Amino acid sequence: MTTPIRVGILGASGYGGAELIRRLLHHPHAEITGLASRQYLGQPIAACWPQLTGRLEHLSFQTSDEVIEGCDLVFCATPHGATAPLVKQALDAGKRVIDLSADFRLPAELYEQWYQKHPHPEIIEQARYGLVELHRKELSGGDLIAVPGCNSSTAILSLAPLAVNGLLGPTAIVNIMTGVSGAGRSVSLGFHFAEVNENAKPYKVAGTHRHTAEIEMTLGRLQGSGRNVKTHTPFDPYSVSFNPHLVPMSRGILATCYTRPDVSMDLKQETLFEHYRTFYEGDPLVGFSEDLPQTKAVYGSDRTVVSVRLDGRTGQIVSFAATDNLGKGAAGQALQNFNIMHGFAETTGLITEGLWP
Amino acid sequence: MTTPIRVGILGASGYGGAELIRRLLHHPHAEITGLASRQYLGQPIAACWPQLTGRLEHLSFQTSDEVIEGCDLVFCATPHGATAPLVKQALDAGKRVIDLSADFRLPAELYEQWYQKHPHPEIIEQARYGLVELHRKELSGGDLIAVPGCNSSTAILSLAPLAVNGLLGPTAIVNIMTGVSGAGRSVSLGFHFAEVNENAKPYKVAGTHRHTAEIEMTLGRLQGSGRNVKTHTPFDPYSVSFNPHLVPMSRGILATCYTRPDVSMDLKQETLFEHYRTFYEGDPLVGFSEDLPQTKAVYGSDRTVVSVRLDGRTGQIVSFAATDNLGKGAAGQALQNFNIMHGFAETTGLITEGLWP
Amino acid sequence: MTTPIRVGILGASGYGGAELIRRLLHHPHAEITGLASRQYLGQPIAACWPQLTGRLEHLSFQTSDEVIEGCDLVFCATPHGATAPLVKQALDAGKRVIDLSADFRLPAELYEQWYQKHPHPEIIEQARYGLVELHRKELSGGDLIAVPGCNSSTAILSLAPLAVNGLLGPTAIVNIMTGVSGAGRSVSLGFHFAEVNENAKPYKVAGTHRHTAEIEMTLGRLQGSGRNVKTHTPFDPYSVSFNPHLVPMSRGILATCYTRPDVSMDLKQETLFEHYRTFYEGDPLVGFSEDLPQTKAVYGSDRTVVSVRLDGRTGQIVSFAATDNLGKGAAGQALQNFNIMHGFAETTGLITEGLWP
Amino acid sequence: MTTPIRVGILGASGYGGAELIRRLLHHPHAEITGLASRQYLGQPIAACWPQLTGRLEHLSFQTSDEVIEGCDLVFCATPHGATAPLVKQALDAGKRVIDLSADFRLPAELYEQWYQKHPHPEIIEQARYGLVELHRKELSGGDLIAVPGCNSSTAILSLAPLAVNGLLGPTAIVNIMTGVSGAGRSVSLGFHFAEVNENAKPYKVAGTHRHTAEIEMTLGRLQGSGRNVKTHTPFDPYSVSFNPHLVPMSRGILATCYTRPDVSMDLKQETLFEHYRTFYEGDPLVGFSEDLPQTKAVYGSDRTVVSVRLDGRTGQIVSFAATDNLGKGAAGQALQNFNIMHGFAETTGLITEGLWP
Repeated sequence: MTTPIRVGILGASGYGGAELIRRLLHHPHAEITGLASRQYLGQPIAACWPQLTGRLEHLSFQTSDEVIEGCDLVFCATPHGATAPLVKQALDAGKRVIDLSADFRLPAELYEQWYQKHPHPEIIEQARYGLVELHRKELSGGDLIAVPGCNSSTAILSLAPLAVNGLLGPTAIVNIMTGVSGAGRSVSLGFHFAEVNENAKPYKVAGTHRHTAEIEMTLGRLQGSGRNVKTHTPFDPYSVSFNPHLVPMSRGILATCYTRPDVSMDLKQETLFEHYRTFYEGDPLVGFSEDLPQTKAVYGSDRTVVSVRLDGRTGQIVSFAATDNLGKGAAGQALQNFNIMHGFAETTGLITEGLWP
Repeated sequence: MTTPIRVGILGASGYGGAELIRRLLHHPHAEITGLASRQYLGQPIAACWPQLTGRLEHLSFQTSDEVIEGCDLVFCATPHGATAPLVKQALDAGKRVIDLSADFRLPAELYEQWYQKHPHPEIIEQARYGLVELHRKELSGGDLIAVPGCNSSTAILSLAPLAVNGLLGPTAIVNIMTGVSGAGRSVSLGFHFAEVNENAKPYKVAGTHRHTAEIEMTLGRLQGSGRNVKTHTPFDPYSVSFNPHLVPMSRGILATCYTRPDVSMDLKQETLFEHYRTFYEGDPLVGFSEDLPQTKAVYGSDRTVVSVRLDGRTGQIVSFAATDNLGKGAAGQALQNFNIMHGFAETTGLITEGLWP
Repeated sequence: MTTPIRVGILGASGYGGAELIRRLLHHPHAEITGLASRQYLGQPIAACWPQLTGRLEHLSFQTSDEVIEGCDLVFCATPHGATAPLVKQALDAGKRVIDLSADFRLPAELYEQWYQKHPHPEIIEQARYGLVELHRKELSGGDLIAVPGCNSSTAILSLAPLAVNGLLGPTAIVNIMTGVSGAGRSVSLGFHFAEVNENAKPYKVAGTHRHTAEIEMTLGRLQGSGRNVKTHTPFDPYSVSFNPHLVPMSRGILATCYTRPDVSMDLKQETLFEHYRTFYEGDPLVGFSEDLPQTKAVYGSDRTVVSVRLDGRTGQIVSFAATDNLGKGAAGQALQNFNIMHGFAETTGLITEGLWP
Repeated sequence: MTTPIRVGILGASGYGGAELIRRLLHHPHAEITGLASRQYLGQPIAACWPQLTGRLEHLSFQTSDEVIEGCDLVFCATPHGATAPLVKQALDAGKRVIDLSADFRLPAELYEQWYQKHPHPEIIEQARYGLVELHRKELSGGDLIAVPGCNSSTAILSLAPLAVNGLLGPTAIVNIMTGVSGAGRSVSLGFHFAEVNENAKPYKVAGTHRHTAEIEMTLGRLQGSGRNVKTHTPFDPYSVSFNPHLVPMSRGILATCYTRPDVSMDLKQETLFEHYRTFYEGDPLVGFSEDLPQTKAVYGSDRTVVSVRLDGRTGQIVSFAATDNLGKGAAGQALQNFNIMHGFAETTGLITEGLWP
């Protein structure tokens, strides 16, 4: 048994933080040494997380300074904008960083177009974009991983086999249904139970949601190369209409994506199945299935399931992906990167079976 | 006060039947004289519908023969296939019929292509397709109304302003999120609470759902004419990719529709708003709003709300509609037809405010 | 047709306010002349209530001063403490008041014991406690009605037939399951969808919830007299253990109450049924049923349903009541009082059928 | 590494079976060698359980004969009545059995009173009642464990510290709120999503639910002895009023229990806390907390959390317990027994952190 890696979590009172803890408690090569939360500072972990009562009783919530100080690697599950300075601080202190925020996913100019002025653009080029199935080869080294967004990851995994096989039409539509936890644990009338229950509600549609940028970037890269892409390769973005909808679930993302390739191609359903099967062969956390995916099948787990249909009436290819936004969409993918970064087996400490029901 | 119309309901133990009863109890010109249910035959109404305890105590469930016999007009909320013979029986007995099943929505050849051999094709041409906002002019006479499907109605109302304004691209996508009651009250593992809750699940996608036919038919008719279309006008179907998803709600349909018109048109968001506003001006049960629709806003009501967005990045027009599948999607639309058929004010007995929360 | 009564609603951006509006829009003798909301001041009604889009477009939210000024009768759906001064203002201006808050339900000393110092104790004796089925006789006159709490009302209706028949043991237990809307529309982590969904959670149990006082007061009065009680009669409180639980529903209260009378009484189930049947005979909004009540049967409606069981093994009587906390538990009961106050038929404008599903 | 124990599961297409699989896949000393299901016979595991896609691909569902034949130990997650013969068959074949059904929980006469004639009463005395926290000492040997019912287990754990400390009054009330999965995966109108959602519904109350017998038996045993009780010790049942309610959740049981001890005892809240703390000290799967339990805190986990309150107004003690009915209420408790039976650490392969949200 080697010495475990000492890990700290910033933003440990959010849902992403809780899911990191749930997995790290059972990771054979990691030890949680610090949890930061401004809101629960000084309080025991169970004050924030009743489901962890009886665990981690030796810890209480600390400041981010304390957490960074006491660990070898920091997981940042903090809001975009606020995260970049924390990342800089940790890197400067010689720590590795796995960042679940949006702060290091995009080139500086794209970040500034979709988000705001970037406080530390010079660090961006150190980052690698941790969508493992596409970037695996470059993720084993390096000190800073930018974990993809939950929606982006789901949509990209659904469309990637089309992109590399030249089957994207001039544009693609990403229609997302998402559970509430994707928006975090902060309170707002829009997330009040009585407002969400029995409600299906579109929001930030038609090019106004920031995850659009990541999807366009990664599909652009995939179109210009093969399956393995690199974070800092220049690219022509591929244009995507991203349209999310909130549905009354705590967890889960279902992406239904549409693209209409050149109709002269004479596509067949079986060819599509074959492309997907081949593309994800051997990937432990993305599964292709001829059956249509559903979010319950990946509930609480770190897998994404994808499938695809050809709609012969219209020439539309319809691709699907189901993800737990807190699993493969956040904490699971972060840990998958952690494992690759350190040379551990890719699924160490991860959860490959969904909770049903 | 004139003599009320005596109405009977076949399939009165299903959700559509219950919603008809809830409205008819307060309709000033109708009296419920009979409710048919094979399963609850002979039992009091409250044995099937606890929410009606104390109401209709003078009735018990009867056979369809008895119900047809005792009324002036029959609402059929019975399954497709089983309904056509009941409609024939009622018409032969001199009764009027408002049919909520699929049996008289389509021309015979389309019906046989999507459903099965039609037992009474000769009656089809008597039927009028009761999507009121498009067919209003032809609905005031006649003895047989075919009430549109809940998904079809929602999708068509979302896309109709584009169709009449020449803004549909070569194909359209209809992405549907629907609550469970759309599938009726019959039991099945797929509708078990523990299987539906915390699950978003596509089904019958990519040209396999029967409602595709109705949408293609009506959009085809709208493209070839103006706003007011007629049931038996020949048409070229417009091709639609119809993709429904089950989400954990009891009620509600949200249609998100996509089409990409010729990009040379130089469309503007405001133009789209204007088309929608104009199209539905004066319609009491379809409302245009610049805000995005949500199903909760029409919960328990007989309204559909529509909106539209231009996604400038991709040239996609994204249109939206929210409906209560049991309101404007079924019982409400049936009663709207009932009112027009008899010359009553169109919203008599209907419900125009949603239940929130 | 007489001139309608001009009604205003204070707190019209809360759930109770919305349900008052939904009913008052269809009340033949009332006209909504003003809606007050501090948060939505100056905005159109639909900005707060999407389900009312297209209705009340001539109004926008006003200050409470403006609303009181412009009406004959004010419904207060405002928080306790803040309401008493508004009631005073309205009464001083010669308006009638129906108050849904807790401010005038209790004698001053009890109010101060359970809530806080009462700002206008001198008004309390003008108020009548609007639990109609018990206080009906005294409600037709007067200018100020205190509408009971939703939990209190449900629990009292469940236990009242036992109280008047001498069947309460030395103490009673009120076990409540309640939906989220009972706590109002204000945001809080405890009402976040992802925290409430898949959760059953007790809160303010064992004598710490303020509704205890109302239940003890009214059962105390019932024990000392017959069915018709009066607001200002002195009473010995009857001791109750009140234990509420939050369950993942938007609406609905189910009270399950337990009491163990003197075992020498040799009770029979049929006797209990007879007591309940007799007690509520003729009451249009409280129904006794031998079947067990469920909240769905009264969803969106203004009825309460009660039943009762004798547990022979233990001598416990178990009584049940199901209420929609926003219907008979709030807006419905307020309007029931409005009707009685003005001599209208008791159910005018009320909703007697539940929404199912 | 020793040779793993070969385990088979009968009833592997039910929810209890799925949860056994989820845990056993990660148990270091067990190997799943067979899964029986009549309904899915011959089909791959993923046909029944989408969340297990990619796992157990070497297996398909078999007959119970095949499964019993191929394993060392059988978990029975089959219906009561049907299970006893399977248990006999397995024992006769020299296999060990952990039975999640009701068939071996009760003495024959009680079983026949509450269920039906017992087909193999002679086996009952071989069984040990697997409520680990009370029976731990006798569970390490033997070949047949009867896993307690989910409701029974939850209620007993909530009341046990009162029983051993002489604090039960003449009778106790067990008020249960339960999610739908407790009733299994079989289809029925009562479990249809649209009937369960937004509904709180009592069922089988006041002495008609079979779990009453187990609770009365075990509390009876605890009253007559200390904390460690034995399965076949004679006992005087303690009388309990058991009242379950279905609430709209997939998982979770919250028991709220009431008893009123002799009021002369002058109880204090702190004394109650102390009794509970002491009673469960060192138990890895039952936690006492001064905070009120909630089902979400144990979601997907194998822990039960208990707490207690004294209601000073009424002298009622109110005790609480939250359990995941499929975790500590079924599969988790079964595996806890499996571990003890084989001398493994008690929580091996079990799940001690809940899934939040």
